[in-house]
Amino acid sequence: MDENGRHIVVVGAGFAGLQFIKDLKGAGVRITLIDQRNHHLFQPLLYQVATTLLATSEIAWPIRRLFRDRDDVTTLLGTVIGVDATAREVRLEDGSAISYDTLVIATGARHAYFGHDEWAEHAPGLKTLEDATTIRRRILLAFERAETTTDPDERAAELTFAVIGAGPTGVELVGIIAELAHRILPREFRQIDTHRARILLVEAGPRILAAFDPELSQYAADALEKKGGVQILTGTPVTQITAQGITVGDDFIPARTVIWAAGVQASPAAEWLDAEADRAGRVMVTPALTVDGHPDIFVLGDTAHVESDGQMVPGIAPAAKQQGQYAARVIRARLTGAEAPDPFRYRSMGNLATIGRNSAVIEYKKWRLRGWPAWWAWGIAHIYFLIGTRSRLAVALSWLWSFVTGQNSARLITQGDNSERR
Amino acid sequence: MDENGRHIVVVGAGFAGLQFIKDLKGAGVRITLIDQRNHHLFQPLLYQVATTLLATSEIAWPIRRLFRDRDDVTTLLGTVIGVDATAREVRLEDGSAISYDTLVIATGARHAYFGHDEWAEHAPGLKTLEDATTIRRRILLAFERAETTTDPDERAAELTFAVIGAGPTGVELVGIIAELAHRILPREFRQIDTHRARILLVEAGPRILAAFDPELSQYAADALEKKGGVQILTGTPVTQITAQGITVGDDFIPARTVIWAAGVQASPAAEWLDAEADRAGRVMVTPALTVDGHPDIFVLGDTAHVESDGQMVPGIAPAAKQQGQYAARVIRARLTGAEAPDPFRYRSMGNLATIGRNSAVIEYKKWRLRGWPAWWAWGIAHIYFLIGTRSRLAVALSWLWSFVTGQNSARLITQGDNSERR
Repeated sequence: MDENGRHIVVVGAGFAGLQFIKDLKGAGVRITLIDQRNHHLFQPLLYQVATTLLATSEIAWPIRRLFRDRDDVTTLLGTVIGVDATAREVRLEDGSAISYDTLVIATGARHAYFGHDEWAEHAPGLKTLEDATTIRRRILLAFERAETTTDPDERAAELTFAVIGAGPTGVELVGIIAELAHRILPREFRQIDTHRARILLVEAGPRILAAFDPELSQYAADALEKKGGVQILTGTPVTQITAQGITVGDDFIPARTVIWAAGVQASPAAEWLDAEADRAGRVMVTPALTVDGHPDIFVLGDTAHVESDGQMVPGIAPAAKQQGQYAARVIRARLTGAEAPDPFRYRSMGNLATIGRNSAVIEYKKWRLRGWPAWWAWGIAHIYFLIGTRSRLAVALSWLWSFVTGQNSARLITQGDNSERR
Repeated sequence: MDENGRHIVVVGAGFAGLQFIKDLKGAGVRITLIDQRNHHLFQPLLYQVATTLLATSEIAWPIRRLFRDRDDVTTLLGTVIGVDATAREVRLEDGSAISYDTLVIATGARHAYFGHDEWAEHAPGLKTLEDATTIRRRILLAFERAETTTDPDERAAELTFAVIGAGPTGVELVGIIAELAHRILPREFRQIDTHRARILLVEAGPRILAAFDPELSQYAADALEKKGGVQILTGTPVTQITAQGITVGDDFIPARTVIWAAGVQASPAAEWLDAEADRAGRVMVTPALTVDGHPDIFVLGDTAHVESDGQMVPGIAPAAKQQGQYAARVIRARLTGAEAPDPFRYRSMGNLATIGRNSAVIEYKKWRLRGWPAWWAWGIAHIYFLIGTRSRLAVALSWLWSFVTGQNSARLITQGDNSERR
C-alpha cells in the first residue's frame, strides 16, 4: 500500500475524533471525517443550555470550520449505518459507501432507559443540542402552566421537577433548576411562588456523585439541599415514568418535568463490527484501542470499553481526547515503521461537578477542592477547553452576566409542540 | 367603572404591545399581556439569525423578564382564538376566557403566499425564531448536499438560492447569503467551489427596495451584484414554486433553497372582531386606532391598517412603537378625563436596509446615506434599539467578530428533519 495514499475514515466528530485528527496533522495521510451533525458539541456544558444559562451556538462549532486549513481533511455530513470490514467500507444512509484503509469509530453514546424505551418520551436525556432545547422548553413551560392552572394539585405537579441519576450531569441540572426557581424567576410570576418548586434528584445507588470521594458527595448533597426545594432520594430506583409523574420504589410522585441523566448506551458500532461488547453496548477493544482481529479498526471514546490499570476508563471528555491522541500515535508509528507504542494508559484528570452558581466539587489525585474556589477553578478550566477566542468570550460573558445580575441569557421556549402546553 | 380596577388586556408582545405597556407605567391600570410565545422578538434582525450571523437568544427576551418589576402587569403564555366584544372577553385555545375593559390587539402578521399556500413548504418565510432556524438549516444543508452529490446538475441546483421579494428583508438575506458563499464558507469544502453559488433576488415590481428613492435602489442593486453570484430579476412574478425550483414568468430555474420575503397577511384579528379589513387582512382602524363602533378595542402594528397624511403607515418597528405610544396616550386621557389626543400621525424614521457587510442604504427625510457610513449608522442604531446591556454586548461582539475575522458565530444545523438531507 502506498502509505501516502493511506485513507483514514473517522466516524464521529466528538472529542476523540477531533483529537485524533488534530494529532495527525502533517502525517501525510488522507482523512475523511463523517458526522451526522454539522457541528462539534462541547457536551460538558450542554446542561447549561438545557437550563437557559448558555445559548446553543456558544458550545457548538461547525466541523468544517475547524479543519478548513487542513487540506488533508474532508468533512462529510452523513449518517453511517454499517461497516463492511471485509470490503473495508463504511456504508451510509444515503446508499453510498466510502472505503478506508484505517477506520476510527468514535460515535459516542445515547441515553438508555434500561429496557423502558417508553420512558424516553416523558424523560428526555441530554446528548444533543435538540435534547437541550427540549429540556429547556419543558422546564420553562412547566412554570408557565403552573401560572395558568387554578387546580392546586396540578400546580404542585407542574412545579415538581425530577432528575433521574445523580452523576455530575444530574447534580448540575438540579443545581441550576433550583436557581431558576429561587434566583432567576421569582418576581416574574403573579399567581405562583416559584420558591415552592420541588426539585427531586433520584438515584438508585447509595449516594450522589458515586465516582467522587464520599466526603465530597456529602458536601454536594448538603449544598444542593441548602438551595431550597431540593430533595435527594438515594437508594431507590425509579420503577415507572409516565406523563403524570414518576414512581420511586412504590411511591408515585406527580411531576410534570422529568429529565433522564441515568444510563447510557453506546452507539451501535458493536453491531456494525459484529464485535464483542459490554452490557452498555461498548465495543471491547485491545490495549491498542483496536478491535480484536481488526488492527485497522479503532474504537474510541464512549463507544469503546477501554481498560487501564484494571479499571474501566470513564466516559468523559479528557478520556476521549487521550484515546484520540493515543490512536494517532499508533498510526504515526505504523507510518514510520517505528515500534508500536505501549498499551493505552488513562491519566485521570480528576472528577469535577458544579452545584449551581458559585459552588463545585473537584478531586484530582489526592487533592480535594470544594465551594467557590472549586467553582472558579472549574469555570476557568472549561473556558480554557472551549474552542476559539470567540466562544471563550461569549461563554465568559454569559457566565459573568448571570453571576452579576442573576439573569440567564437564553430563556427561550422554541421549537415547541403546542401539545406540550396541554 | 372603578378606574383603578380598569383591566386592559394586551394580545401580542411585539413592538406595539410592549411600547403600549411601557407607556402606561404608573397609570393605575391592571394589564394582562397574552402572547403565544414566551419571548419578545427583535424581528428587524431576524434575517441575521437565518443567515448564521446572530444566535437566537441574542435577539429574543423573555417577556416576563421585561415586566418583572411592573406589579400591574401579568404575563400569560397563551393562544387567543377569538374575541367576544359583547361579553368583553378574549377566548383562549385552552378553553378559558379573560374579560377586559379595554382590549389591545397587536398580534402582527404572517407571510402570505397570494393564494398559493402549497408554496409555504418549499419557501419558508421569516417571522419567528423557528422560521429563522429553518432557513438557516436549509441554506447550510444545501452546501452540504452540493458537496456530496456527484451529479453536476444537482450540484448546481443545490448551489442556487432564490429569495422572493426585494424589500429590505429580501435584500438583506441576499446580501448575507452572498457573503456566506464568498467570504465565510470558501476553503471549507473539498468538492465544490462555494464561489459558484447563484443567489437570485426575484421581484415582481420594477425595482428592488421600492419604498426607497430610485437612486438608492440602483445603488443597492449594483452593490449586491458586485458581491458575485447575485442575479436580480425584477418585473417578473414567480408563478410556481416546487421542491425542484421556481418558475419566474415562463422560465423554470432549478433551485433547492427558496426563501419567501414577499407578502404578509395580518393575523386574524379582523375575523375575531368581525371588522372591516384591507386585502392583507389588516383591520381598518379609526384615527384613534380603535375599531369602528368599539372605542375600547385598539388594533395596532402590523395587524392594523393605519393611515397618516393620506398614506398607509408601513409595517415596521418604529411605526408599531408609535402606535403603542399613541394608544397609551389615549388611555391616559380617558383615565384623567382629559381631552382625547389628536388623531394618530406617523412620524417617519426613514428607511434602512443593509447590503451585507459594510454597506447599507438609509433615507431619512431629505437625507440619503449609503455605503459604509450608512452601515455603521445602521449598526449603531440597531444596537441602541436592542433591549438591555447584555444583548447589546452580545450582538456587538457577534458583529465585530464577523467583521474582523470573517467568521459567523451561529452556523448550526439544528432541529433538522433528516428527510431534508435527501
